Amino acid sequence: MKNFISVAILFLFVAGSCDAAVSEKTSECLECHRTATPGIVADWERSHHAQIIPADALKKPMLERRISTADLPKVLSETVVGCAECHMMNSENHKDSFEHNGYQVHVIVSPENCAVCHPVEEMQYEQNIMANAYANLKDNPLFSSLVKSVNGMQTFENLGTAYAEPDELTQAESCYFCHGTNVTVEGMKTRETDFGEMEFPILTGWPNQGVGRLNPDGSKGACTSCHSRHEFSIEMARKPYTCSECHKGPDVPAYKVYSVSKHGNLFSSMNSGWDFDNVPWVVGKDFTAPTCAACHVSMITTDDGETVAERSHRMNDRLPWRIFGLPYAHPHPKSPNTALIKNKAGLPLPTELTGEPVVEYVIDAEEQNRRRETMQQICLACHSTSWVENQYIRLENTIATTNDMTLTATQILTTAWEKGAAKGLPQGEDIFDEALEKKWVEHWLFFANSTRFASAMAGADYGAFANGRWYLAKNIQEMADWLEFKLQSVEKK
Amino acid sequence: MKNFISVAILFLFVAGSCDAAVSEKTSECLECHRTATPGIVADWERSHHAQIIPADALKKPMLERRISTADLPKVLSETVVGCAECHMMNSENHKDSFEHNGYQVHVIVSPENCAVCHPVEEMQYEQNIMANAYANLKDNPLFSSLVKSVNGMQTFENLGTAYAEPDELTQAESCYFCHGTNVTVEGMKTRETDFGEMEFPILTGWPNQGVGRLNPDGSKGACTSCHSRHEFSIEMARKPYTCSECHKGPDVPAYKVYSVSKHGNLFSSMNSGWDFDNVPWVVGKDFTAPTCAACHVSMITTDDGETVAERSHRMNDRLPWRIFGLPYAHPHPKSPNTALIKNKAGLPLPTELTGEPVVEYVIDAEEQNRRRETMQQICLACHSTSWVENQYIRLENTIATTNDMTLTATQILTTAWEKGAAKGLPQGEDIFDEALEKKWVEHWLFFANSTRFASAMAGADYGAFANGRWYLAKNIQEMADWLEFKLQSVEKK
Amino acid sequence: MKNFISVAILFLFVAGSCDAAVSEKTSECLECHRTATPGIVADWERSHHAQIIPADALKKPMLERRISTADLPKVLSETVVGCAECHMMNSENHKDSFEHNGYQVHVIVSPENCAVCHPVEEMQYEQNIMANAYANLKDNPLFSSLVKSVNGMQTFENLGTAYAEPDELTQAESCYFCHGTNVTVEGMKTRETDFGEMEFPILTGWPNQGVGRLNPDGSKGACTSCHSRHEFSIEMARKPYTCSECHKGPDVPAYKVYSVSKHGNLFSSMNSGWDFDNVPWVVGKDFTAPTCAACHVSMITTDDGETVAERSHRMNDRLPWRIFGLPYAHPHPKSPNTALIKNKAGLPLPTELTGEPVVEYVIDAEEQNRRRETMQQICLACHSTSWVENQYIRLENTIATTNDMTLTATQILTTAWEKGAAKGLPQGEDIFDEALEKKWVEHWLFFANSTRFASAMAGADYGAFANGRWYLAKNIQEMADWLEFKLQSVEKK
Repeated sequence: MKNFISVAILFLFVAGSCDAAVSEKTSECLECHRTATPGIVADWERSHHAQIIPADALKKPMLERRISTADLPKVLSETVVGCAECHMMNSENHKDSFEHNGYQVHVIVSPENCAVCHPVEEMQYEQNIMANAYANLKDNPLFSSLVKSVNGMQTFENLGTAYAEPDELTQAESCYFCHGTNVTVEGMKTRETDFGEMEFPILTGWPNQGVGRLNPDGSKGACTSCHSRHEFSIEMARKPYTCSECHKGPDVPAYKVYSVSKHGNLFSSMNSGWDFDNVPWVVGKDFTAPTCAACHVSMITTDDGETVAERSHRMNDRLPWRIFGLPYAHPHPKSPNTALIKNKAGLPLPTELTGEPVVEYVIDAEEQNRRRETMQQICLACHSTSWVENQYIRLENTIATTNDMTLTATQILTTAWEKGAAKGLPQGEDIFDEALEKKWVEHWLFFANSTRFASAMAGADYGAFANGRWYLAKNIQEMADWLEFKLQSVEKK
Repeated sequence: MKNFISVAILFLFVAGSCDAAVSEKTSECLECHRTATPGIVADWERSHHAQIIPADALKKPMLERRISTADLPKVLSETVVGCAECHMMNSENHKDSFEHNGYQVHVIVSPENCAVCHPVEEMQYEQNIMANAYANLKDNPLFSSLVKSVNGMQTFENLGTAYAEPDELTQAESCYFCHGTNVTVEGMKTRETDFGEMEFPILTGWPNQGVGRLNPDGSKGACTSCHSRHEFSIEMARKPYTCSECHKGPDVPAYKVYSVSKHGNLFSSMNSGWDFDNVPWVVGKDFTAPTCAACHVSMITTDDGETVAERSHRMNDRLPWRIFGLPYAHPHPKSPNTALIKNKAGLPLPTELTGEPVVEYVIDAEEQNRRRETMQQICLACHSTSWVENQYIRLENTIATTNDMTLTATQILTTAWEKGAAKGLPQGEDIFDEALEKKWVEHWLFFANSTRFASAMAGADYGAFANGRWYLAKNIQEMADWLEFKLQSVEKK
Repeated sequence: MKNFISVAILFLFVAGSCDAAVSEKTSECLECHRTATPGIVADWERSHHAQIIPADALKKPMLERRISTADLPKVLSETVVGCAECHMMNSENHKDSFEHNGYQVHVIVSPENCAVCHPVEEMQYEQNIMANAYANLKDNPLFSSLVKSVNGMQTFENLGTAYAEPDELTQAESCYFCHGTNVTVEGMKTRETDFGEMEFPILTGWPNQGVGRLNPDGSKGACTSCHSRHEFSIEMARKPYTCSECHKGPDVPAYKVYSVSKHGNLFSSMNSGWDFDNVPWVVGKDFTAPTCAACHVSMITTDDGETVAERSHRMNDRLPWRIFGLPYAHPHPKSPNTALIKNKAGLPLPTELTGEPVVEYVIDAEEQNRRRETMQQICLACHSTSWVENQYIRLENTIATTNDMTLTATQILTTAWEKGAAKGLPQGEDIFDEALEKKWVEHWLFFANSTRFASAMAGADYGAFANGRWYLAKNIQEMADWLEFKLQSVEKK
């Protein structure tokens, strides 16, 4: 029924007198692009952008408003948000700007462009670890060597192996696909098109919609990571499939855990009767179980209009702990720029190799409490206080036990280094390139992470047999056996 | 369209005069809980419970009836089933009962409470292996040691490893999350609430909706495992996502197998045109391919009202074989309480370590035939007799071949025990804690199980490369190599 | 809304005067089968086959036409396509034909039967590698030995292992489930039915809907692989779940990669507003992101009726490279019959063991360009030229780097063979049966394949941690370690 209504609205818009609301510039774009790229034009026509002028969007009551500016430029207010409104905005700041049929347009619409109407979201997002995902990987020497050991070509000679530096094209479709690439302009290229010869910029690291993309205007991130072009739908960002683009693999199985949780089951089984487009998002009415967005991003209200949670695009506002991506779970880092962190041993990690957090770089217990309570407000919309408290007691127990299991694996690794069965920190060598080291990485990056996600979101199997505790237990036995076998080999030589 | 109609019905109910059908007690609950826990109140409002009074539900023709009591208490018959009707029912039997605003209420609505209206379902479920999932794990010493080897903390010292007993919080979110916890009352706690100071019971093993949960009223199981609170939807129970909460991991990949089967594809591709709420469930009309429930639980009829299958909440009524969870597939156990079983070697298993079933504990060929035929009636609604027969011939061949492959793996393990390469039964030691033993467990618990599920439900990949025969074959080679490497190490010492 | 309308149409048809359009023979079938197999009759009633007579289907404008014959037999033109029209068609060519209530009917409706109305699709499909999937596996001695090492029973004696030949029932539900079985008639069997005693053919390799099935009429393939009985829906074939039946496992994770791609996310999040039944399929209007079918099979047009891509059931028309199933990615084979191929070393492979393609058997660069451009036309409906070009530059880089990583793994394997640590080509022994050989197979069959799919469809995780580059890197380290441990063992003996 909802679809019928949307289609009807769209029809009225397209057929009716509202055409006047499309700017002249955008009309000119559409004239050619309706045949040049018909898919995205039709996609845009389904969007809110194509259906409401910002001036009207601003007249809505505060809770229902989808734009956060207090200071809308007049030139944007009376036409719908079309091609020109984004691709020609502040083009002077864009290195990817080029002359196109008499206009200066840029390829990559950046968060700074979006911020003209959505400044609060852009400001929050900027303070997000995600927005810094490029530099957090590139500028951290430890993570860089992990990346090299994954993406670099290996060769085999004289019974030994060697790594080469990874090439840029591989980087762009491996780690940096999600972390974001550095998009730069390398020159211009002339192309023959249906509309004659034209010049276009040559971009490196393109295409990419990674969360920490470095844009040609100097900004960080890509709103399109979650709000895909050119419908930019809130429905899509609220559905868990969007998060699954980057959060499904063994290193961060959030989507998989969600999908076997009660919440995920309710979503999968019942969501055809939910409303994913309503703003504000009313708990129990628009949806009866949370999606990723409900717990981590969205503004949630009750049917009476009482706020359960404020909207936040700084995703860790509700997260006391960082539970993935690093050897030990730890309180969230204070700064989203994690490349600055150093532990006592001089390693760029927020914990020691034995698990203790480096206090000056992580949030304190008070801030953890604040964030825990913010999240719990959402849980409490459907669950009792004792339910919610016990859920958190379990999660924090699991953080402790998985950290302990990682410590055990680390002790096997450091013993191997000490005895010369593997070469690592004591030898000043790469700590990710050998088989035992890779088993150690899987211990925390796959199995401990998975177990913690399973606990956090109550998707039990990922804490049991599906990359959970079964694998933590097995991995320790296999690491110990590997060490035993390798020591024989070492002693023999 | 269906949603539109449901919404319309709901609207009439909420707006109209039906409000009278809500009991006074429930009205009082709703008064506060509409703001205290708005999500679950809205969820309940979508339920059949909120929309029909039991007296009317009983007037429906037998085939369409959703309640099975012949003896409805008068006090329940004229109001809808709301908060009070469940949370205040037989509260005197509930150790988790507490005084709450002048009423005696309990937190955990148990199968015994549901049985007031749904006695047949409760009685059947009680005879289910699932209902005994807690004790079947806890009271079986072999399974308990498997649980310990998964959930216990490991330490590493002097090149050797050691296990500790698992803690209760870990148990509750690992194995016992699905099997069910033992929920006990530890005392009372005073909390400050929006409505003043109140006392609530302190529960262990809570939250939990495991299938074999031990409830504070002494009953076993949780109807909410499948019929989630507070909509208690038959639609949800009929969709495969519900079963996937516990039956998706490598140990029991039923959902995964289903999702790549022709049946699963038909469900995923075409279910938006199906009716998941109709009772009885009409094959070909309400659905064109079975979900888990269709084959294992639901009452199925033809459009003429002829019964294809009776409803059964004793899920093994249609299952001649138990194909997962144990070293060898075998005829279904006679009693749902499997902790009583002992084989000739004294192990608590329904087969010998060489695969022969322990006949006194498992159903005989005649009962197997009866169950096979019950299931086949459902297949025959869409398939020819020869199709269905051949499907079963294949499945039973696969049961035999996967048992043979497990025997081979078991021979490698027992050889290792005999030669002292690993310590197990001959040494009176744990048989799940070493690397080779864990590979043996994966052989049957992951790979043989997966291959059988793939056969049973025609989801071929899980019998080939996705944890199927490829892994059975590879695992035997790796077990043999491990034994070779370990024997060198043992001989050297 | 769409469902409502379909239901309404169906109702009009069933209730109205159109009943006349059902042939007498089909009416007779329906009389009994409505009660004998109610599920498939109801399913058929939802089909286009049941709702339009071929004569009317032919009156549609060319672009909207669902049948491709220019030469419709008169006897078929004025009745809907029911039971008799397919199961009694050209029955004389069918070895599975049998006398049934006075008619000669056959069990297996073959592509040759479908070709009476859909000849273009049948002709294209026949030239497909898929249509030859049975012989391509069976008649290639190398693949046959891989199949044996997966499906054959293994035994363990004197610390060594041995393989037996796989049995036919296992083959039919493992590799040949998707590749297709050889369905032969072994005789007749009398059965007691609800309608008295009847005779039916006994079929081997049945049931099966594998893509290369050998049918009793001598034809190859099964249209029902994708267009499931008895609705034969284009909607289903256009949804990715259909392809996932065979293309989801670790050996060919196309569906998994798609599901984490932006395209897959758009499908999952937004498809409830798409039209999967429209012919032609209009980009941007009927769908806003491609499914498998959109890129690989379907006819795509713009809203103005301009053709973006021609329909093709020869799935490699748009594929310059074959990226899975073989040690090295290579230009697509010229002939769909790949069992004929031989490399310089005499192995039945389209590349040497060092990776060079065998030029006489694979398409040349010009043909690759033609296919690349055909595919790119679809990309360009939504993306810019530079986007599309860069996507292909990345893919072709990934083809090169994954081939290089496979070469490294192959060098470890051949070194092991040379040094006698494993027995393979130099010893004239099976090259798939030992643990190291199985790690080598996983290198290309799982990890390199997965990485290439991730690149081709921009589902990054399957090129990183989810069976991607992480595993390529780790596998080489583990292969090198295995060789080191095994050489100790070999030297000792």
